Amino acid sequence: MSQPVILVPTMGALHDGHRKLIREGNAIKGNKGTLIVSIYLNPIQFNDPKDLDKYPRTFDTDYKVCEEEGADLIFAPSDAEMYLNSSSVKVSENKLARELCGSKRPGHFDGVCTVVTKLFNLIKPKIAIFGKKDYQQLSIIRQLVTDLNYSIEIIAIETQREQSGLAMSSRNEQLNEIEKEKSSVIYEALEAMAKSGESKSKNLIRLGKSIIDKESQIIEIDYLEVVDRSNMAKLEIIDRPALVAIAVFIGKTRLIDNIEINFE
Amino acid sequence: MSQPVILVPTMGALHDGHRKLIREGNAIKGNKGTLIVSIYLNPIQFNDPKDLDKYPRTFDTDYKVCEEEGADLIFAPSDAEMYLNSSSVKVSENKLARELCGSKRPGHFDGVCTVVTKLFNLIKPKIAIFGKKDYQQLSIIRQLVTDLNYSIEIIAIETQREQSGLAMSSRNEQLNEIEKEKSSVIYEALEAMAKSGESKSKNLIRLGKSIIDKESQIIEIDYLEVVDRSNMAKLEIIDRPALVAIAVFIGKTRLIDNIEINFE
Repeated sequence: MSQPVILVPTMGALHDGHRKLIREGNAIKGNKGTLIVSIYLNPIQFNDPKDLDKYPRTFDTDYKVCEEEGADLIFAPSDAEMYLNSSSVKVSENKLARELCGSKRPGHFDGVCTVVTKLFNLIKPKIAIFGKKDYQQLSIIRQLVTDLNYSIEIIAIETQREQSGLAMSSRNEQLNEIEKEKSSVIYEALEAMAKSGESKSKNLIRLGKSIIDKESQIIEIDYLEVVDRSNMAKLEIIDRPALVAIAVFIGKTRLIDNIEINFE
Repeated sequence: MSQPVILVPTMGALHDGHRKLIREGNAIKGNKGTLIVSIYLNPIQFNDPKDLDKYPRTFDTDYKVCEEEGADLIFAPSDAEMYLNSSSVKVSENKLARELCGSKRPGHFDGVCTVVTKLFNLIKPKIAIFGKKDYQQLSIIRQLVTDLNYSIEIIAIETQREQSGLAMSSRNEQLNEIEKEKSSVIYEALEAMAKSGESKSKNLIRLGKSIIDKESQIIEIDYLEVVDRSNMAKLEIIDRPALVAIAVFIGKTRLIDNIEINFE
């Protein structure tokens, strides 16, 4: 493959998780490729306008991060450039997107699919890099690539975590120090679930909840589910590759995380 | 532009209208381009399975037509190649597609948008050629190209007609000789409407209906509307570029046609 264009799509507020994606892109591109980081806070994937309002915007720092990690180009369009007033075309995924976050955030994944399609058409990457923290999003994008016949390779990168285990997220900035500290129970629970060897989802979820509920004064579970990794549908018995996926509220901040459970 | 790929998307059953599209592609492509005719009877744009069943399939003749008109390549995938059992991604247009045929054929334009997106991604044309007979489809595809940021030029070709004025359509094959003859009133009505100079849609439609109703024993009007050409919305007064669009049933066969009314 000569001169591949590699895309790392982001919404800005770049953290070490994003750095990992960009570094991976840099490692893949070789001498002749072009590594493009898109920075676009896509309004149409926010079902809650307040969530969009308080999403951190740190373009100057983001620019430096991209530079430091060796991006060749930043694509940072304005809302007016991305969405004309007259725009009326939508891309939607109608199976995976019904589960987990899709059922909690109506329209969210339509917004994701639409903007990713636009970015793919504008940037024409050969490779696009996504993080596993947004595992459902990753699965939906893979489905989009298959169903819409894009010749784009999707590369998935492991979730970058704080030392405490908390998955890195731009939304972590909205937590105070105590909330951040207590949030480590999320990954503690996921790890305990993955290591338990338990094959009944019901019991596994009970285990996870018992750990997170140690911090029930601060953390409210939005969902905690065990799903089939191929289609994001609920699993009763772990008899195939599975995913434990969780969303929690800490105050008004919603965080998600997940862990893979392999089936041998 | 060097070596442009030019796409003429069709559902087969090629007639002189298609020949005109292919010839236009041939004229544009120059010495170095590639002219691709896609022949794919897209099942997901048929809201009525009976309509799909009786749609003519004439691949051997189609192949010859493409050869005669100088196509370089025919892309004729199978249903299994185009749609995996697991496919779940849809492209939809949600403004223009609500009007005219969109309101009569639920899901039709979703099917069109989805297959055209797939064809664009598979074939990566620089130019795609569509006929004005399917005017609403043409408008929706233009919207899709804009909204999804395809760098594809859409070229629209005037409707090819029988000597009688009847717009050429693969569905005309389903008419018997008498029906075909009587169907000439459709274009007779459209032309009379366009030439009348009448600026009130209500009166214009009354005029058109009166002409078509001469053959009311054979032809049933599904809709006859005067719309704004920019958004396909109904117009009361013709104070901007307009379109008269019609759909009729002749027995179980549904035919569409249209005529532009310019506003000076």
